[in-house]
Amino acid sequence: MYRTRNCGELRLANVGEEVILAGWVQSVHNLGALTFVDLRDRYGITQLAFNEDCSDELKHKAGKLGREFVVQAKGVVAERYSKNRNLPTGEIEIIISELDIVNESLTPPFTIEEQSDGGDDIRMKYRYLDLRRPNVRKNLELRHKFAFEVRRYLDQQGFLEIETPVLVNSTPEGARDFVVPSRMNPGQFYALPQSPQTLKQLLMVAGMDRYFQIVKCFRDEDLRADRQPEFTQIDCEMSFVEQEDVLQIFEGMSRHLFKELKGIDIPALPRMSWADAIKYYGSDKPDTRFEMKFVELKNLQIDNASSEIVESIFPEGFTVFDSAQYVGAICCQGQAVFTRKQIDQLTDFVKRPQIGAKGLVYVRVEADGSVKSSVDKFYTQETLQVLKEKMSAQPGDLILILSGDDAMKVRKQLCELRLEMGQRMGLRPKDKYSCLWVVDFPMYEWSDEEQRLMAMHHPFTSPKPEDIELLDSDPAKVRANAYDMVINGVEVGGGSIRIHDAKLQQKIFEILGFTPEQAQEKFGFLMNAFKYGAPPHGGLAYGLDRFVSLFAELDSIRDVIAFPKNNSGRDVMLDAPGVVDLKQLDELSIALNVKELYTK
Amino acid sequence: MYRTRNCGELRLANVGEEVILAGWVQSVHNLGALTFVDLRDRYGITQLAFNEDCSDELKHKAGKLGREFVVQAKGVVAERYSKNRNLPTGEIEIIISELDIVNESLTPPFTIEEQSDGGDDIRMKYRYLDLRRPNVRKNLELRHKFAFEVRRYLDQQGFLEIETPVLVNSTPEGARDFVVPSRMNPGQFYALPQSPQTLKQLLMVAGMDRYFQIVKCFRDEDLRADRQPEFTQIDCEMSFVEQEDVLQIFEGMSRHLFKELKGIDIPALPRMSWADAIKYYGSDKPDTRFEMKFVELKNLQIDNASSEIVESIFPEGFTVFDSAQYVGAICCQGQAVFTRKQIDQLTDFVKRPQIGAKGLVYVRVEADGSVKSSVDKFYTQETLQVLKEKMSAQPGDLILILSGDDAMKVRKQLCELRLEMGQRMGLRPKDKYSCLWVVDFPMYEWSDEEQRLMAMHHPFTSPKPEDIELLDSDPAKVRANAYDMVINGVEVGGGSIRIHDAKLQQKIFEILGFTPEQAQEKFGFLMNAFKYGAPPHGGLAYGLDRFVSLFAELDSIRDVIAFPKNNSGRDVMLDAPGVVDLKQLDELSIALNVKELYTK
Repeated sequence: MYRTRNCGELRLANVGEEVILAGWVQSVHNLGALTFVDLRDRYGITQLAFNEDCSDELKHKAGKLGREFVVQAKGVVAERYSKNRNLPTGEIEIIISELDIVNESLTPPFTIEEQSDGGDDIRMKYRYLDLRRPNVRKNLELRHKFAFEVRRYLDQQGFLEIETPVLVNSTPEGARDFVVPSRMNPGQFYALPQSPQTLKQLLMVAGMDRYFQIVKCFRDEDLRADRQPEFTQIDCEMSFVEQEDVLQIFEGMSRHLFKELKGIDIPALPRMSWADAIKYYGSDKPDTRFEMKFVELKNLQIDNASSEIVESIFPEGFTVFDSAQYVGAICCQGQAVFTRKQIDQLTDFVKRPQIGAKGLVYVRVEADGSVKSSVDKFYTQETLQVLKEKMSAQPGDLILILSGDDAMKVRKQLCELRLEMGQRMGLRPKDKYSCLWVVDFPMYEWSDEEQRLMAMHHPFTSPKPEDIELLDSDPAKVRANAYDMVINGVEVGGGSIRIHDAKLQQKIFEILGFTPEQAQEKFGFLMNAFKYGAPPHGGLAYGLDRFVSLFAELDSIRDVIAFPKNNSGRDVMLDAPGVVDLKQLDELSIALNVKELYTK
Repeated sequence: MYRTRNCGELRLANVGEEVILAGWVQSVHNLGALTFVDLRDRYGITQLAFNEDCSDELKHKAGKLGREFVVQAKGVVAERYSKNRNLPTGEIEIIISELDIVNESLTPPFTIEEQSDGGDDIRMKYRYLDLRRPNVRKNLELRHKFAFEVRRYLDQQGFLEIETPVLVNSTPEGARDFVVPSRMNPGQFYALPQSPQTLKQLLMVAGMDRYFQIVKCFRDEDLRADRQPEFTQIDCEMSFVEQEDVLQIFEGMSRHLFKELKGIDIPALPRMSWADAIKYYGSDKPDTRFEMKFVELKNLQIDNASSEIVESIFPEGFTVFDSAQYVGAICCQGQAVFTRKQIDQLTDFVKRPQIGAKGLVYVRVEADGSVKSSVDKFYTQETLQVLKEKMSAQPGDLILILSGDDAMKVRKQLCELRLEMGQRMGLRPKDKYSCLWVVDFPMYEWSDEEQRLMAMHHPFTSPKPEDIELLDSDPAKVRANAYDMVINGVEVGGGSIRIHDAKLQQKIFEILGFTPEQAQEKFGFLMNAFKYGAPPHGGLAYGLDRFVSLFAELDSIRDVIAFPKNNSGRDVMLDAPGVVDLKQLDELSIALNVKELYTK
């Protein structure tokens, strides 16, 4: 036995006990006659004291210690003279009688502390040292607890965790697959699953009733910041359910997780229709930690988010608004103090190519109720007072207005502006949580690229029964039994009730532009299964990495992943991917087809 | 809500309640005026009764029902006239008032019953129907519970479940890797992990202290029966431990699992040295449900399993024994009744090429204590009485003897014979469990193929401290701090204490024939990590599929896997692997290299 206690558990009550600890040297403080060593393990830090009574040998050994050396130390727990209130073990120290240097360490390339001096690249290369930092370690501890509590809750609800295969077939729609050449089946490839969607539906056909799995999924996409080629889903499916049953079960799961892991009782999740989310927040994943809803000052377009025309509140005069199809605004409480310079910054912000607004109109409500704006020369004070009324603006508020030809585009711009203002106004604290369900998604969205309707969720999503008659007359208007769980503006999960009726499925395929032959070829194995008694079913999937990072109050998912990959899909610690023996490729019946390799 | 109750929970106490059930039609019994339907879901079977009072419409609907139709039925719970004691719900039935056919079903290609009439191939193709069979479903339920209890135990013991990546680098030793071409890194490949061995060691360097993971692993091997290209490990590692600590923790896990899942209190696990396992059972995974230990009648070879010469108990005369280096026997209690024909079958059994014995000598102990044998003409009754004594044989016992030039080979043959006899004698019941640790494995085994010593476990396994001095003088004699958990002759798990000392690791690599450069190239990323304070650590990994199949009392792992692959590595349900677009291969910078494709 290398140790009798760990470095996080000793307290005043243990004074007088002889203990053996083992761990890493966090720091050495040599005060001449006295030497103090902070010893660290997963559980905490304990101070080792080498005092005047030490043997010369012990003093010599203590003198050789460097940062991150691994030591085993024996001694007696004693009350500290000068206590450290910041450390749970800060009231005691160990008066050391024996010390064994178990392993030495080179000087680590960055400091092993909460705030490290190491840059991202070097920390990823030495991730095994980065993980020694207490904050990074705590994220992995949280992830463990999170996954465990998910399992505990779902087990209690009668869900079975069933492993689906990793070596599967290429999925017909969606992102690019990673493929795996099959040695035993020359010329053929497995694909790694983008999600176990079809397999979990087959498990419902198989009568498994309630399935879940915490499972790795894979997408060979060009990696944007904070995307990983492999990621983890909490994948769930239930039989003999309607949408409400699914929402209840998984609202319960969120409540369980918040309670167990954060000690927070979250209120019942509000339901917001997709149309309202778009209309009032410009996003299907609104950050509802703060209000600041959109007010439509003009909207001449009827679409899935707007069911009626809003005539402009502005008389003609300002050509930008006059020619716009949509004018929308937000009211930022108490922000009339924004300086001209700050407003200019905001204008630059919305004009960035990623956002793409043409300009920004601002309106300040002064202390006396009068209104000053960047469009004073176009509108009378009367008109601006109507605006103030419409925005329910109070003295001291700042109204920000965007406009344009395409309501959807302007809403997205206004959404970015709203989030930016929320950020600046401190309305988006990471430790405050606002959860909701966004429901009633449209079945389809128009693809300019493909010039056809595309499934918004996936082709197995069930339309709302009351909208089925619209499938023929106005498919773009059909709403789906689909739902997303949104927390703090992040879509943590989403799913749908699936189609279990073969005829309806056929119709959906037709609308998506598949011939019966194509549908059979692409989705045949699932369609065949549906011929043998498919139950009504539905489910959802959560992104575990994202969900945990919200609980960890992190912006990036990377620090809740033990060994993440960089934006080129490389693991710089393992140096993967790498080259492979040509002999091995031969066995796999493939060859390299890299132009640069030929020309070199 | 599709149902208010499930098909497994209603009892006499529920009589009078109105319920809605949903599920699959197991069977329809039309008795003219009465129709009974057995409705099945994951939870059980409940009888639906359509009696004389039914409306014509209801009767008509009930008449249309076929096997595996999905229905929703409303009715009142009533006591049954003729009760079915074999069914938990057998005392009640539901008097149906409403019936909705939710989905029809084609006639399934085999019966959905415990004993199906479907062959292996068809059941795998329609696995979603096969999984509806209650025994197959129960295996997956058991697997879920098993994995959950593993997690619960390890969580309680302070282990963190940490996900390691699936897209890693090619491992230097071991089986063939599955590889994944990287689109973003042309000409380079990820490998799928054969196990997270090096990653879990890095997690120990990272200070994670106690790690586990239930994780998919991959091996591109030619598939023997009951091997899968993807399989699941319970992978574990601990820091600051000695072998005894690891054995205690995981013995505790086994005890927990047997108690929670089988209601069995298993005794403390005996420890058997590898040498004894080989000497007495001819296997490093002895089936200890029964004794029938080997007795060495002659052994002229000193090797890792034999530390002393055993002179032959037989005088010269029978050239087979005279020329043999090793003669070993087992005593089968009460089996003197074996007929000549049965003995001939046994002889054929050991002479099969897979076993490879030259012949079999048998000795019967008669009721009067006299001995009859197949070698009566070579030996006196006196000699055979000495044999009887040596074997502790009683009247009615059958002694079976094998011999040969290579003790190890004969032991393996004798092992097969012992298992066969145990089977025939009913000594290997599937519901009896005998667990043990096999310890003190040799560090190395000689490879005839490679003409060098190979690591028996892997090159990171620590030698026993007391054997380290033998590393120079007699490496083949060095024992490792390695251990296997064996249950009923199956190795369910195994592991070792790892080397954490860089110099010792260097020496081990030398003995394995690596130059320092080769060692650096092959194991560099781990060796570099070890320079920064590697703690003493060790662990083990269990084969989950195998472990669960033992609990499920199954011979094959296939039925504890939802969607297994066949012996060609194919998923016949998904029809994977499959062909891939040439465009996709182009993007991946690879090309097909299949001769048959070129010549066609």
